[in-house]
Amino acid sequence: MSVQAPSSSAATQQQPDLREHVHEAARRARVAARRLGSLPTAVKDRALHAAADEVLAHRDQILAANAEDLTAARDADTPTAMLDRLALNSQRLDGIAAGLRQVAGLADPVGEVMRGYTLRNGLRLRQQRVPLGVVGMIYEGRPNVTVDAFGLTLKSGNAVLLRGSSSAAKSNEALVVALRTALVGEGLPADAVQLLSAADRATVTHLIQARGLVDVAIPRGGAGLIEAVVRDAQVPTIETGVGNCHVYVHEAADLDIAEQILLNSKARRPSVCNAAETLLVDAAIADEAMPRLRNALQDAGVTVHGGGPDGADEADLRREYLSMDIAVAVVDGVDAAIAHINEYGTGHTEAIVTTNLAAAQRFTEQVDAAAVMVNASTAFTDGEQFGFGAEIGISTQKLHARGPMGLPELTSTKWIAWGEGHTRPA
Amino acid sequence: MSVQAPSSSAATQQQPDLREHVHEAARRARVAARRLGSLPTAVKDRALHAAADEVLAHRDQILAANAEDLTAARDADTPTAMLDRLALNSQRLDGIAAGLRQVAGLADPVGEVMRGYTLRNGLRLRQQRVPLGVVGMIYEGRPNVTVDAFGLTLKSGNAVLLRGSSSAAKSNEALVVALRTALVGEGLPADAVQLLSAADRATVTHLIQARGLVDVAIPRGGAGLIEAVVRDAQVPTIETGVGNCHVYVHEAADLDIAEQILLNSKARRPSVCNAAETLLVDAAIADEAMPRLRNALQDAGVTVHGGGPDGADEADLRREYLSMDIAVAVVDGVDAAIAHINEYGTGHTEAIVTTNLAAAQRFTEQVDAAAVMVNASTAFTDGEQFGFGAEIGISTQKLHARGPMGLPELTSTKWIAWGEGHTRPA
Repeated sequence: MSVQAPSSSAATQQQPDLREHVHEAARRARVAARRLGSLPTAVKDRALHAAADEVLAHRDQILAANAEDLTAARDADTPTAMLDRLALNSQRLDGIAAGLRQVAGLADPVGEVMRGYTLRNGLRLRQQRVPLGVVGMIYEGRPNVTVDAFGLTLKSGNAVLLRGSSSAAKSNEALVVALRTALVGEGLPADAVQLLSAADRATVTHLIQARGLVDVAIPRGGAGLIEAVVRDAQVPTIETGVGNCHVYVHEAADLDIAEQILLNSKARRPSVCNAAETLLVDAAIADEAMPRLRNALQDAGVTVHGGGPDGADEADLRREYLSMDIAVAVVDGVDAAIAHINEYGTGHTEAIVTTNLAAAQRFTEQVDAAAVMVNASTAFTDGEQFGFGAEIGISTQKLHARGPMGLPELTSTKWIAWGEGHTRPA
Repeated sequence: MSVQAPSSSAATQQQPDLREHVHEAARRARVAARRLGSLPTAVKDRALHAAADEVLAHRDQILAANAEDLTAARDADTPTAMLDRLALNSQRLDGIAAGLRQVAGLADPVGEVMRGYTLRNGLRLRQQRVPLGVVGMIYEGRPNVTVDAFGLTLKSGNAVLLRGSSSAAKSNEALVVALRTALVGEGLPADAVQLLSAADRATVTHLIQARGLVDVAIPRGGAGLIEAVVRDAQVPTIETGVGNCHVYVHEAADLDIAEQILLNSKARRPSVCNAAETLLVDAAIADEAMPRLRNALQDAGVTVHGGGPDGADEADLRREYLSMDIAVAVVDGVDAAIAHINEYGTGHTEAIVTTNLAAAQRFTEQVDAAAVMVNASTAFTDGEQFGFGAEIGISTQKLHARGPMGLPELTSTKWIAWGEGHTRPA
């Protein structure tokens, strides 16, 4: 069912045909993608509901496979937080199936006419959304990404090659069996979703270098994974999700609001990419604001790095903690805050707390990030919150998509011109 | 004036600080880009007119520099076609200056609100166009690209790092002196346009690997250049301009129209990327259509490869001739034509000639290319023709932009959220 040519034992030896194996999967994905690209919305939606049904019908097998992954992970002394990401249970499976049905309810981006006009010579031109084709997803622990990625790529008419973590290999395999069963049941090509072996790191390299076979690679995971993919990729790539996000408390801030935004940005879910990692406080109000915000953080269980006379050190300021830790620094005015953020930030989400309009406008204009918040928590940068219904990741690059990516971000465009023998004058 | 740290003699030795030299230029470009990103449209337009004035004011210096490049190129036995691309004259300079004024007249994409709405919780969200930041252009012979790239990147609020061909080094240098003089005269940062030394190939490598400093690399030139850039790049890249374009004559084609579209697609300007390189003829009409189209091509001075009983060979079918040559093959119906094109094409421009609606619709839907023409010449794929006013290149990839790229394609977006202390519920 799922693509599994290299057994884990064979793959740990250097396998000469692993590249060909990945390319072969990509070629099958391309064939499937052509079919998917012109499916009516109703057919895709029916397939999404069928996939939800099959995930629930395969509940026992999926949970048994997940239990195996969890046992292996516990044996390998995996930290609790990662075990939690890996774990499935009946309720989480219900949520995963509900997610598929939710995607079925979203608008189909394919075929949307973006621009269209008739040229002076009578040539009728329109630019339409089309699927990207074959999407390569490289991701870490969470098995729910397997199903989310399938749902979003199917709805947008794309085939997907999944390269998950080896720690979730059995869970992913069981999930993909359910998804492929649903496709076949609907008369659609099973190869629209394929799971690549996670046993060999080289699978990732072959996937992201499959020029002409894979249209886009989307790495989703920690900074190390994303850095490696971007460095080695030869297919177009979308960087996602590394967030060294700042909350900047301007001298004209309402400190009650500052405190609640800071705590929400840091402590609501510290392990996610939109969580705040650095607090910047204006020098003009540092004497009053710093002790108060520091105490509030500490009361919430957050460890504060710096913020005293010496400030946080360079390493703290660069760090994406993803934990109950925060770096603190004092800056001298909005321009210094902007300069600091543009130097240390990762272009994800940056927030200012202020009552001053000019400062807010300057900050939103000059800060170079996917999302800029004025008097609002960094936690809002999220496809669901933005009203997209679902997201495949949060882009921190400027090309193609920036910020949360939903269905339209999984499409490209095509120009179509209708003429009656039109030729171009010399 | 222009960035010229490594003298050509020093650069031909392996220069350890060449990387730092490129990075330093990129850092200066970033500083300039911040300034450009928030300039009012009127200021940018004034600078574009000033640049046009300075290009004309520097006419003698530019033409003298170009004469030096031409002499060196002739001494190196450069082919006539390439000499013509390299050559400037008074009339061409007038055209280059007029191009800058034309860009001044185009709409400013920066600040355009793409989407905007108020969330249920009252958070006011909008997605706005912002400049990309620092654009790296890697290109070949033509010095006019130097000025075109400057005009389009300035208008879209970007700084540009130019890495032209060594064959045009003196011409480019003289042009960039004029452009930088104009910027300084308008009180704008000269480093918004910088010319990197063309003396060392490693400059390209350092430019396209300057992660965090360069926001996008755009290679513009032959297939070899583009392939090399895509392979080695670590910054996001837009592939441009390789076009193995097809004209497919369907069995229900009007042969008069087929002939005129074929000749226009092939022979109007054979050296450009939207020129047709392969003719596909339906088997059902091959007996009648093939001799006629073959003769028409030959009468126009085009060498026909294949099209006899044996057809063109594999190498012909893959080739982007960029000359008065064309490959010819017979295909059995619209689906075979689509399959052929999706196998051999480069995703640039594909044309069908037919009177049959279903065939036209199937072709436009199933062919995977940036532009698909129905009864129209492939020559129409062009920013100017599409009404963009100017283009920076034609993207043949699916990410970010596909087809001719004008000003909006030189922008990214930023989400801005305005709240009043909004926090996200757990």
